[in-house]
Amino acid sequence: MDLIAEFLLRVLGQFQSPSLAFLIGGMLIAAMGSRLTIPDAVYQFAVFMLLMRIGLNGGMTIRESDPADMILPALAAMGIGVGIVLLGLITLARLPKIARADAIATAGLFGAVSASTLGAAMVALEADGIAYEAWVPALYPFMDIPALILAIVLAGMGKAKSDGNTVTPWFIVKDSLRGSALSALLLGLLLGLLTRPERVFETFYDPLFRGLLSVLMLVMGIEAWQRLSELRRVAHWYAVYAFIAPITHGLIAFGVGYLLHQATGFSPGGVVLLALLAASSSDISGPPTLRAGIPEANPSAYIGASTSVGTPIAIGVCIPLFIALAEVVFTLP
Amino acid sequence: MDLIAEFLLRVLGQFQSPSLAFLIGGMLIAAMGSRLTIPDAVYQFAVFMLLMRIGLNGGMTIRESDPADMILPALAAMGIGVGIVLLGLITLARLPKIARADAIATAGLFGAVSASTLGAAMVALEADGIAYEAWVPALYPFMDIPALILAIVLAGMGKAKSDGNTVTPWFIVKDSLRGSALSALLLGLLLGLLTRPERVFETFYDPLFRGLLSVLMLVMGIEAWQRLSELRRVAHWYAVYAFIAPITHGLIAFGVGYLLHQATGFSPGGVVLLALLAASSSDISGPPTLRAGIPEANPSAYIGASTSVGTPIAIGVCIPLFIALAEVVFTLP
Amino acid sequence: MDLIAEFLLRVLGQFQSPSLAFLIGGMLIAAMGSRLTIPDAVYQFAVFMLLMRIGLNGGMTIRESDPADMILPALAAMGIGVGIVLLGLITLARLPKIARADAIATAGLFGAVSASTLGAAMVALEADGIAYEAWVPALYPFMDIPALILAIVLAGMGKAKSDGNTVTPWFIVKDSLRGSALSALLLGLLLGLLTRPERVFETFYDPLFRGLLSVLMLVMGIEAWQRLSELRRVAHWYAVYAFIAPITHGLIAFGVGYLLHQATGFSPGGVVLLALLAASSSDISGPPTLRAGIPEANPSAYIGASTSVGTPIAIGVCIPLFIALAEVVFTLP
Repeated sequence: MDLIAEFLLRVLGQFQSPSLAFLIGGMLIAAMGSRLTIPDAVYQFAVFMLLMRIGLNGGMTIRESDPADMILPALAAMGIGVGIVLLGLITLARLPKIARADAIATAGLFGAVSASTLGAAMVALEADGIAYEAWVPALYPFMDIPALILAIVLAGMGKAKSDGNTVTPWFIVKDSLRGSALSALLLGLLLGLLTRPERVFETFYDPLFRGLLSVLMLVMGIEAWQRLSELRRVAHWYAVYAFIAPITHGLIAFGVGYLLHQATGFSPGGVVLLALLAASSSDISGPPTLRAGIPEANPSAYIGASTSVGTPIAIGVCIPLFIALAEVVFTLP
Repeated sequence: MDLIAEFLLRVLGQFQSPSLAFLIGGMLIAAMGSRLTIPDAVYQFAVFMLLMRIGLNGGMTIRESDPADMILPALAAMGIGVGIVLLGLITLARLPKIARADAIATAGLFGAVSASTLGAAMVALEADGIAYEAWVPALYPFMDIPALILAIVLAGMGKAKSDGNTVTPWFIVKDSLRGSALSALLLGLLLGLLTRPERVFETFYDPLFRGLLSVLMLVMGIEAWQRLSELRRVAHWYAVYAFIAPITHGLIAFGVGYLLHQATGFSPGGVVLLALLAASSSDISGPPTLRAGIPEANPSAYIGASTSVGTPIAIGVCIPLFIALAEVVFTLP
Repeated sequence: MDLIAEFLLRVLGQFQSPSLAFLIGGMLIAAMGSRLTIPDAVYQFAVFMLLMRIGLNGGMTIRESDPADMILPALAAMGIGVGIVLLGLITLARLPKIARADAIATAGLFGAVSASTLGAAMVALEADGIAYEAWVPALYPFMDIPALILAIVLAGMGKAKSDGNTVTPWFIVKDSLRGSALSALLLGLLLGLLTRPERVFETFYDPLFRGLLSVLMLVMGIEAWQRLSELRRVAHWYAVYAFIAPITHGLIAFGVGYLLHQATGFSPGGVVLLALLAASSSDISGPPTLRAGIPEANPSAYIGASTSVGTPIAIGVCIPLFIALAEVVFTLP
């Protein structure tokens, strides 16, 4: 009983995080009809900075750590990404009034990963002093790419075989890697691994990351509100799925992470980040890839579900939830 | 005699401020026909950063101070905003060859507030080590909104009543609050008041503020020069008004602030900022609100007067003037 | 023998510089067909920041140093800029299948200066602890303007005199100074010289410079790859010239700088920067000036040669080369 009370208190304590505040602030001003906008160039640059920061730090850490430590978590991330899409196929896709292609695309987007949510999770862990292996954020593509590939392949198998325009898995991998998000992340990884970007990391990418994240959160809040009208135009099951999926996916990944912790000493912070990679849904790189790969799916369904409900739930509910859960499960101070 | 010499010396000392230097630099390169431009996205983002910084700091301070302290200064700010518009109505509007609507719109813009001028004033006070209550910059909307409302209502009363397209004061309040400038300021206030943005404030919004202000000053200098040709096309009285008004409005507000200082211990720095809020004229949020609210007024008159003469006078003359005045009046070191 | 081995080791040591890494990274992701782009507004702002930083620092230093020290290096820079164009006239312009106007424009661009290469050189010198007079980067216009003027005048002399549209040298000087690059640099110089921008320099222009330079390098790498196809469409001699010219020009300037060192005590770091000013070719200000001044020249030739080959060679080969050369020649630690 004490444990539950402590857990709830810790969840509440997370609610003053600036990331969540800026997200809600963005939703609020959009709801009030504010004309405040963040220029698109600033948004794109903030995303680039965020992914370079994750990539550079990941690369510099992998350089100094044993790559063998990463193998199991990377496999786990792949399995979770694939599992989320299959779970969507046997739940969302079977609901009434749901088109199969729309359901698969939505599950693919929820299996893919959001860099902004990941960034907000990193800042929240740091604020609570919960350590993690610095390469954990670099697990991003291991969950992201398999989820998108599986979704596009499953959607393609469902289509009439007469359609000659088949997309091979290898094409999807290449197309994902060429997207701006994964390009920036992998470029950062490579530069961190092979060169000495310590100084530019410490004086530029790292200090600006936290501030630009607050700007990103604001943009995502504004977007979330504006996309709500699109979500209203599709079956309500998308909203239900988008509400339940982040928590469910996060809990599954938390369980997997817990097993890794027991087996290999994977850090509590790493378990939380793995759960939040699973809880997040793609906002930058996923949508264009899906639009190209599953052209028959309705973007209002999958983008509306992810941007308007999935992301706010991942940041507003899952980040406090899984940090509090870790603090109780791993008896952190 | 000594006092006047000291005052003049102190005015001169203010002329090496970087804000003024960047403003004059912008005018200079525009006068030379330079093709240097600051991308619009950067300008918009700099304004956002400036207003968030003012708002966040205001919110965090109000959280820790007695809101009762703000009541009198807020009422004073409202009174000054209203007074400036009425003063314009009985001076500028009565001059020959001046259309009533144009005069009212101009007075409204000079009653409204410039975030950039306010930012430059804050940096100048800090450079001179003159303290002020951290919530003073948050008086911005208390002067800005009443001035704009009164101008639009006065212009509407002058129009033929047959015109069905009446704008209610409540509509103007809502429209002002939805503008990008006040949205950002109030969002910052709210976040500062209700959440814990200390860290992102200290690592992002505050340190970047001073630098981005220099970029804003440059843009405003370029704009001031480019708008001069528009001002030449309207009656010369606008230039005369734009030259005299900032100093007059500032002196009135300085007097009001001085009374507040005697009555309630309002800080000398607060008196200077109140004077400079009054001396400044709106450059971001005011013009579009007036264009919507007083469509019959000629933007070349009010924007030209404010951007080309009012702002340079407020920054270049009023900031040094009122800081020197405060140093002498309050015998600061 | 030992000296050569030491020299080669030092060249290799330079290859881990982040500037070069980001440049190659940009080429790599462009070669992979990545959709990652840096918004144009960010690129333009980064260039502005870089040039303001060079200008402000130059101005603040000149204020405190003896201007007489600058006279000989400035004359040397002018001579080198002029010499590079004349050298192009007697080499590149005489090769088979090379149009005279194209050759002159290319030589003009290689005589002009690249702010990004200069920035990368400054960061590399700083990383190696090699000091230079802080006004050396401000020699930029002394080499840049004469090279562009001479190229445009030479091209004009070659044209039929019937063409009434003659461009005077004075027009070229004015047009160069009005370009965004030189405007920003000279504005920074002026502000550094006449005002007190120390604080905004130390808190904004200087700390952001290194980070934004990495972004610029990335953009230049992407550009270099994308322009390669243009270069393929013109005579291969342009690629050969673009490969050899930066090293040759740098060696000549290194020799001139060495003489200045012997005669006046010009610093080793100054010699390296002079060599790299000569090795660099213009990427921002030069192309539009040449396009206006030598309209008959083919931009694919001169921009392709400079952007795709000249700049990568200047940054990737010349910076390590001339730093290592200075370390050996001046027996630096």
